[in-house]
Amino acid sequence: MPIADKMVKMVESASMIRKMFEEGIRMREKYGADNVFDFSLGNPDVPPPTIVKQTLLELIDDKATSHGYMPNPGYPHVRKAVAEYLNKEYHVGITSDLIVMTAGAAGALNDILRALLNPGEDILTPAPYFVGYNQYAFVAGANLKTIATLENFHLDLDAIAAGITKNTRVMLINSPNNPTGAVYNKEELSGLAKLLEAASQKFGKRIYLISDEPYRKIAYDVQVPCVFDVYPHTIVLTSYSKELSLAGERIGYLAIHPDAEDADLIAGAAGVANTMMYVNAPALFQQVVGKLQGVTVDIEIYRKRRDIFCEGLKEAGYELDIPKGAFYLFPKSPIEDDVKFVKLLSEQNILAVPGAAFGGPGHFRLSYAVPDKTIKNSLDGFKKALNSVK
Amino acid sequence: MPIADKMVKMVESASMIRKMFEEGIRMREKYGADNVFDFSLGNPDVPPPTIVKQTLLELIDDKATSHGYMPNPGYPHVRKAVAEYLNKEYHVGITSDLIVMTAGAAGALNDILRALLNPGEDILTPAPYFVGYNQYAFVAGANLKTIATLENFHLDLDAIAAGITKNTRVMLINSPNNPTGAVYNKEELSGLAKLLEAASQKFGKRIYLISDEPYRKIAYDVQVPCVFDVYPHTIVLTSYSKELSLAGERIGYLAIHPDAEDADLIAGAAGVANTMMYVNAPALFQQVVGKLQGVTVDIEIYRKRRDIFCEGLKEAGYELDIPKGAFYLFPKSPIEDDVKFVKLLSEQNILAVPGAAFGGPGHFRLSYAVPDKTIKNSLDGFKKALNSVK
Repeated sequence: MPIADKMVKMVESASMIRKMFEEGIRMREKYGADNVFDFSLGNPDVPPPTIVKQTLLELIDDKATSHGYMPNPGYPHVRKAVAEYLNKEYHVGITSDLIVMTAGAAGALNDILRALLNPGEDILTPAPYFVGYNQYAFVAGANLKTIATLENFHLDLDAIAAGITKNTRVMLINSPNNPTGAVYNKEELSGLAKLLEAASQKFGKRIYLISDEPYRKIAYDVQVPCVFDVYPHTIVLTSYSKELSLAGERIGYLAIHPDAEDADLIAGAAGVANTMMYVNAPALFQQVVGKLQGVTVDIEIYRKRRDIFCEGLKEAGYELDIPKGAFYLFPKSPIEDDVKFVKLLSEQNILAVPGAAFGGPGHFRLSYAVPDKTIKNSLDGFKKALNSVK
Repeated sequence: MPIADKMVKMVESASMIRKMFEEGIRMREKYGADNVFDFSLGNPDVPPPTIVKQTLLELIDDKATSHGYMPNPGYPHVRKAVAEYLNKEYHVGITSDLIVMTAGAAGALNDILRALLNPGEDILTPAPYFVGYNQYAFVAGANLKTIATLENFHLDLDAIAAGITKNTRVMLINSPNNPTGAVYNKEELSGLAKLLEAASQKFGKRIYLISDEPYRKIAYDVQVPCVFDVYPHTIVLTSYSKELSLAGERIGYLAIHPDAEDADLIAGAAGVANTMMYVNAPALFQQVVGKLQGVTVDIEIYRKRRDIFCEGLKEAGYELDIPKGAFYLFPKSPIEDDVKFVKLLSEQNILAVPGAAFGGPGHFRLSYAVPDKTIKNSLDGFKKALNSVK
């Protein structure tokens, strides 16, 4: 085999996803784009706020704007702007040397895992979980160990405590969650912090909490608690992919709590990991987000879609939790075999992702980063698919 | 230790480089920017061609321009533009599915090494070599094995043939070369191809040639030979960092020869590696370079600097080859200990990098991606440093 052994499986699953995309394209060609209901992708369709375009135009016209290398962890003025924003929002007392600008949250996660983990160490994460975590763990040469969540997709603290061993280096959480939309509350996060501290003491090895927060600003009626408040040994990572609809530009950052054990050393290692992986976060968009701290797309667009979709699916007879954040629904599959049910949905020209892909079998994921009318016009198909298995 | 064991050494060397940067800043503050001669960085100071700005402005004003996710290996229309350009220039008959858009040449190299190498396999590269190769080999979990070049920094084919074992998967070359500026000629590349083919047969394992070509367009009086012409099992990778002065934007690509063994499989694996590392090459700059195939900064600016610098150093008494490409000089250190000589240069406010950092001890690297006057005003200091060891 001319490619790396471990890549073979990765290529196979990627080719399954590609086949799904191609099926979507084939369906659009056959039935017309308006008659295909594609909920399979987490690619924001809401355009970036108009100030993004204005800022881009100003920067491109400004002779001081650079397209060259900057220090690998990012422009000092951009890291400072991020630190100031975090301090204003969360009063964490962070300094710019604890911020690393990254190629989105994926780049941030690769950086921090590379920095923290020796090959063969464990990353714990609650399931269902974002499918990319398998890939990032693979890149770091680490093991991804999943811990089932409660019925409502919240943290099962007992199960997490039972899952930690001397091999655990990192607990990785994602709230608001992809694929479930769950937002962890302060109480469960405090409980998590307590058990991580206890386990760190027990095993004589610091366990770090990594909080992957690209959907923090996409939340409805709740304030997403700041994980920095509950556990100092925390690294927060995020991107502007969803909050500014810039997913393809690969811009985000990681931020290390100033009281984290060996915070400076970790920041240094994460900056070096940056250099090793892709050198630096893209220059122009670093300069853009440096000017747009706190700016967010109009969340009401997503809220409206969530409400239409949840109501429609409930009315059709589906069982689902109404998510408090992100732009995904994760309904229960009416039959045990979620892969089979997703196939039945596709007969109604509806594209969804089986829960099994996220370590959450018996469910399926729907992204509502799509126009309202796609949601409305799909509801009849959802009814038919459900009736076909009743 | 809270960070990964293998990162400790990486962080130490990075902190040495950072100290050098900080020393540069300190010197500029102390002596004034005009009195410090910083030749340590390969960061193009020549601005991007004006058409880059124009293209950016047009794209940002165009509603069809996307900032969202595209297929992970890149926009189909951009990959097609690259394939068409390569076919026009090199008549290789490449198709767009064999192109992957990447986060610069570093991203491309990480992608292709991840795709091809099982952990523990060997990458062979001629020394002196670009210092980043150590890091990319580390990311892939592979071994970087260096082979000394001839006196003039050209390929020592006998040494390469002797260095190949059954553990070798990849031969990695970089021409025009960083740090030496050497440009390999067609004859030595043909010789390399022959020995790679013979070794592949001997060990029953295809050895791929990776040609890292970010300086291809920065060449003087020579046509850089196309490696695709000599060996079909070749992957070319490059970036627009130097040819369009966009180093900080992280935009480049890899291209797989259509006749390479299992070309499609490798393209698939490289695309998946892209996804795993940083998801995709930045969206806006993919769209920019899609429109600017074949555009290059004004090479005459670099040629002039090379000529002033080579003449000045030779006149001062330094021994050096006049490089045919890239924007580096790699003179012989007048004393054996290049680290010590670089320290002597810094006493003249001249910043250079010891050859030892590139696996080329007894030399030092000077980047002439700096204004002409920096070169001219430094020559007196170079003379003094040389005289101090005579």
